[in-house]
Amino acid sequence: MYKIIKYLLIFIIPIQAIAVEGMWQPRQLLDLAEDVKSKGLDIPVENISDLDKHPMTAMVSLGFCSASFVSDTGLIITNHHCAYGAIQYNSTSENNLIDKGFYASHLKDELTGGPGLYIYVTEDITDVSKQMVKELDGLHGRDRYDKMDFLEKNLIDNCESKDVYRCSVRVFHGGLKFYLIKQLQIKDVRLVYAPSDSIGKYGGDVDNWMWPRHTGDFSFLRAYVAKNGDSVEFSKDNVPYHSKSYLTVNQNGLQENDFAMVLGYPGRTSRHKLAEEIDSSVLWRYPMIIKSFTKYIELVEKESKIRPEVTVKYASRMAGINNYMKNSEGMLDGFKNPQALNNKKQAEKEFKQWLFKTDNKTATAALDQLEKLLTEKKQYRDRNFYIGQVKRSQLLSAANRLYRLSKEKTKADVERNSRYQKRNWGRIKNSIERINKSFDNKMDRILMEDQLNEYAQLSMTERSAEFDKLFNIKGDDKDGTRISVELDKLYKNSELANKEIRMAWLDKTPEQFESSIDSFIQLAVSMYTMNMEKEQKDEVMTANLQEAQMNYMQAYLSYAKDQGLPVYADANSTLRVTYGNVMGYSAQDAIKYSPFTSLEGILQKDTGQEPFDAPDKLLKAIKSKDYSRYKLASINSVPVNFLTDLDITGGNSGSPTLDSQARLVGLAFDGNYESINADWIFNKKLTKTIHVDIRYILWIMDKIDNADRLLNEMGVEK
Amino acid sequence: MYKIIKYLLIFIIPIQAIAVEGMWQPRQLLDLAEDVKSKGLDIPVENISDLDKHPMTAMVSLGFCSASFVSDTGLIITNHHCAYGAIQYNSTSENNLIDKGFYASHLKDELTGGPGLYIYVTEDITDVSKQMVKELDGLHGRDRYDKMDFLEKNLIDNCESKDVYRCSVRVFHGGLKFYLIKQLQIKDVRLVYAPSDSIGKYGGDVDNWMWPRHTGDFSFLRAYVAKNGDSVEFSKDNVPYHSKSYLTVNQNGLQENDFAMVLGYPGRTSRHKLAEEIDSSVLWRYPMIIKSFTKYIELVEKESKIRPEVTVKYASRMAGINNYMKNSEGMLDGFKNPQALNNKKQAEKEFKQWLFKTDNKTATAALDQLEKLLTEKKQYRDRNFYIGQVKRSQLLSAANRLYRLSKEKTKADVERNSRYQKRNWGRIKNSIERINKSFDNKMDRILMEDQLNEYAQLSMTERSAEFDKLFNIKGDDKDGTRISVELDKLYKNSELANKEIRMAWLDKTPEQFESSIDSFIQLAVSMYTMNMEKEQKDEVMTANLQEAQMNYMQAYLSYAKDQGLPVYADANSTLRVTYGNVMGYSAQDAIKYSPFTSLEGILQKDTGQEPFDAPDKLLKAIKSKDYSRYKLASINSVPVNFLTDLDITGGNSGSPTLDSQARLVGLAFDGNYESINADWIFNKKLTKTIHVDIRYILWIMDKIDNADRLLNEMGVEK
Repeated sequence: MYKIIKYLLIFIIPIQAIAVEGMWQPRQLLDLAEDVKSKGLDIPVENISDLDKHPMTAMVSLGFCSASFVSDTGLIITNHHCAYGAIQYNSTSENNLIDKGFYASHLKDELTGGPGLYIYVTEDITDVSKQMVKELDGLHGRDRYDKMDFLEKNLIDNCESKDVYRCSVRVFHGGLKFYLIKQLQIKDVRLVYAPSDSIGKYGGDVDNWMWPRHTGDFSFLRAYVAKNGDSVEFSKDNVPYHSKSYLTVNQNGLQENDFAMVLGYPGRTSRHKLAEEIDSSVLWRYPMIIKSFTKYIELVEKESKIRPEVTVKYASRMAGINNYMKNSEGMLDGFKNPQALNNKKQAEKEFKQWLFKTDNKTATAALDQLEKLLTEKKQYRDRNFYIGQVKRSQLLSAANRLYRLSKEKTKADVERNSRYQKRNWGRIKNSIERINKSFDNKMDRILMEDQLNEYAQLSMTERSAEFDKLFNIKGDDKDGTRISVELDKLYKNSELANKEIRMAWLDKTPEQFESSIDSFIQLAVSMYTMNMEKEQKDEVMTANLQEAQMNYMQAYLSYAKDQGLPVYADANSTLRVTYGNVMGYSAQDAIKYSPFTSLEGILQKDTGQEPFDAPDKLLKAIKSKDYSRYKLASINSVPVNFLTDLDITGGNSGSPTLDSQARLVGLAFDGNYESINADWIFNKKLTKTIHVDIRYILWIMDKIDNADRLLNEMGVEK
Repeated sequence: MYKIIKYLLIFIIPIQAIAVEGMWQPRQLLDLAEDVKSKGLDIPVENISDLDKHPMTAMVSLGFCSASFVSDTGLIITNHHCAYGAIQYNSTSENNLIDKGFYASHLKDELTGGPGLYIYVTEDITDVSKQMVKELDGLHGRDRYDKMDFLEKNLIDNCESKDVYRCSVRVFHGGLKFYLIKQLQIKDVRLVYAPSDSIGKYGGDVDNWMWPRHTGDFSFLRAYVAKNGDSVEFSKDNVPYHSKSYLTVNQNGLQENDFAMVLGYPGRTSRHKLAEEIDSSVLWRYPMIIKSFTKYIELVEKESKIRPEVTVKYASRMAGINNYMKNSEGMLDGFKNPQALNNKKQAEKEFKQWLFKTDNKTATAALDQLEKLLTEKKQYRDRNFYIGQVKRSQLLSAANRLYRLSKEKTKADVERNSRYQKRNWGRIKNSIERINKSFDNKMDRILMEDQLNEYAQLSMTERSAEFDKLFNIKGDDKDGTRISVELDKLYKNSELANKEIRMAWLDKTPEQFESSIDSFIQLAVSMYTMNMEKEQKDEVMTANLQEAQMNYMQAYLSYAKDQGLPVYADANSTLRVTYGNVMGYSAQDAIKYSPFTSLEGILQKDTGQEPFDAPDKLLKAIKSKDYSRYKLASINSVPVNFLTDLDITGGNSGSPTLDSQARLVGLAFDGNYESINADWIFNKKLTKTIHVDIRYILWIMDKIDNADRLLNEMGVEK
């Protein structure tokens, strides 16, 4: 059943100590064997380099997060913040599971995670580089994009022979390598156990990205399938899924300096991007985001005070916004010291000198092309930023997607934009259906109006005449009165907030949209051409950037080989391994951070006010020093969170942390503040990963939430 | 010449390990000998317990700071912030010594510290308790105050037979003990060397009270006397003073865990005050100060932006205000965790139980009386606070003092209020003269108006009808218009900002004041009766509090003896010793503070912007790792500041830090943030003292400021 085409390794890594930096494809570990062993791995490297062997077969993806099986009956452990949507889906103002937490005492009590919560089990990875690279050779811009799109669609179409599979083509090294990934999609995922928010999200946005940390960021889900083993949508008759393997728990956890590794699906890094791109991100994008999101948070908080229902509805979005805000701020802080960027520029300079020496004309041209494209990308970026923000309105976004769907449906499936192919209709339906759980009509309008007014502040030369027309924005009159009148009409004359009415649009024709009197549908129809033109332009840019980046990387890999430097591809949501050791760090003179936090740290932080409002039961258990078997002698307490020098990024959330024998000892859930800019530049001294310790998870399950059923299922001795 | 009456020790301390807490009278060390030795003192305790022996004879007081002789020709080392007034006095906008620093290459280049900068060398301490206690017995309130005042004046008058002496009566344990202290007053004190503000005040208000710290808080002064050895005011013919002894330098400094002690003149602590008094301070006084001073800082900063001359003039005051602000904030933070206060309340409860058991009626009555008086003190406290702030106006304050002086001059000297006795006329003259160095007419008005408007917000029942009348404040009209009109008149119709005119008032009669048309003089005359009534009332309160506190302490000392607890008296600006060891600390889970900061920490902090704007020369020297002989191996750098568990408070600034052989190894200059509330409650785990390391001082002198003359004079090998 499993046909694994081995990953191609770019080149052989010299036998020497390797830096901790690196999100390695599992197969690459074979070539890093000496280093992995020297750091403490206690089992053959072969055991962790094979996608069809344990522990890799215990890994799953949630799409946006990582997770792993921890029993042979489909029990999955992941982060609390990864299960947040499922918890929120089951919460109401009257029965707020976010606050109360949830524990299913029996299998039958487990709750559906809601539409669209799927898990993905990788079953096959095929190297399709040869065909792709050959077919794309010599193509540029529009032609290149269309060919790539066409090839990918075909590969995916063939791969998804049965609708239980979900396939994707992943690009490595900017297009030097392409892999077709085949995943089993399990559609019935249930919420099994989530501790209270005041444990699972302890410290909230204040502590997010911070060390020392005391967050119980774990939750349990379960994969269900039909009785015959088929992956089907939620049904009462479904039974727990039997995974090929699952992780066993090492109740003793780790000590300082112990080996640790994390398996997971890191989403995206930009470590191979030019320093010039960092410059424009740091100087332009992050300040824009901070300005825009600060306002977003203010507006939601203000409205929440008046109408508490807004709090629940926007909780998940606010968590995301806050996270992104702090990330952007940390990014700016991280680059305040110019050293990191200067080092990168210096390395780039050395690479350019090498290029010059080796007379590599393709690469030199690619570099010039990259720089040219980056300049081109800056055009209308302010306008595009604000238009993008306006289109985040949930009603406008729904209308745009619905109309687009109707238009795409008129084409043959293979001709459709990939996001609107038949295979994605279920997802579109789920996303259109789910809106009401996190939507408030008035709030949506307030947020849209705010960003429209920001847009209207732009100079007329920066603004788009077509977009201006849509909202009756004229000349330099910026007082927002006309915008307000337009939005009054827009929100008054639409029934799209009504779920049934909205869902009905899924099946309508373009003509029905075009003759509709619903204001949001009309708006979507009016802005369609503008949206399409922008999309076309972006696609050409993407293809050109991809081509230049690929040529750049080809030369860079030769250079790295020449220098004896190991190279890992930038993160692209494929399964990666990062390994290293448990350790603290020092970011400032005379301050040292220890690698473990303790239960007593919760007492120190607790104010009784959110986000430092641990449940009374927890505080009492800490005060009574009821550590039981979960104590770490060196800190004389139960370890809550710990630090390693591992290399993760967004998408790694929920990843299992494994010990030297590949047993579960925690979950990765965050990075320290100094790691925020690691997506661009990894700092060997400062970039650290934060994990929730298995001993804290078990202690909470045992002493606080009495989750005996699950402890038994995981084979944990009590 | 030296007649030292040995300090009376309250009782013999049991032989056991003593807590680090304690500002001990030197003689008490004899009874702590075992503990001092166990902590690492390497010379006989007798050597440091005697006021007429080295090193005590090397100690001097600046009145508001501590300092010490470091050569036999009158060279004095103290903190940069203690010499700040002298630096400011010699600074102009054109020649800003605060920014540039100052170094006298030759003896003849040393600059006068300005009027009023004196140093005090203690020559004699006499126990006068017997007489005082006997005479005060049975007296209460007004009678008690007057008698105490009379006795003190007489003691001082007899003691100050020559005007080179300055005498004072110091109260210990609330009035159980009184000591007459005789100090040689040296009136010609010169500025010898102060590093640039960007070294001496590095980190400024941001780092004030903080660890890790990187402040070069040291400066040098020199004491001068007439050729015949008499203490006289500044004269070109004066020569350096030869002190009885001076401290020698240990260039090697300290290591972690080494013994350290600090000699100095701690000003005031309230460790023996009731928990109830903390409650009212924390809940009322500190928030009031924060509110008022926040506004003060805002207003000065705003005006400084428009008129840069305000910056220089208010620099010293702003430093003081900022320091007090942060202190108040830290105080509130320190008491946020109720544990400390609860512990104190518990200890008080146990003491009360003991009182009850021993049927101590006097003490029980004293406790009741204390509580009653504390309640009484709360009356009109808001009003009094704002009136006090208004009276801080430099012109109003000068006018009040001048008129009061004229009134007091009509009495016999012994009848005068002690602050206006002849012995203080020189000080009054200096303070009246100095005003222009730190005064700006418009700024003074802005600050006064702000606090007047705050006062006017109080309810009519809280306000004072007499005070209202002075500024034409009427009923509930709070718009400040009438106040503004009053202040227009006040500042327009006064010539008091003119130094010559102001100085002339020093010699005028009350009648001349009463017929003056100068608006500030008129105001002072108008508010005189009100001021006097307030003062009389405060004096009665003081006497009553003193009587109750004395009776309380008498019982407490018996209790402590019973419990085997050593007791030191609350700080009262007399010479004390605190000893302990070099050590870091941990205030939060998983964060550890090391005891030494390094040069490299300056590079980390430096932004090029004040207060993190170290001089280029310093940054270059750090980058070149030019540590020379000043390196501490354990940190592989020159240590900048270090931490000990010593017990200091305001007034200790400038104190020498001594090693196990009483050699100079640094200067105490601050406490950590967690130590701020130590004036009320000493926390054994968290209260730490911050010192500037002798190796940093010498490194700066050697590598940055080329202070070879002084290094030679101090006997430092290069």
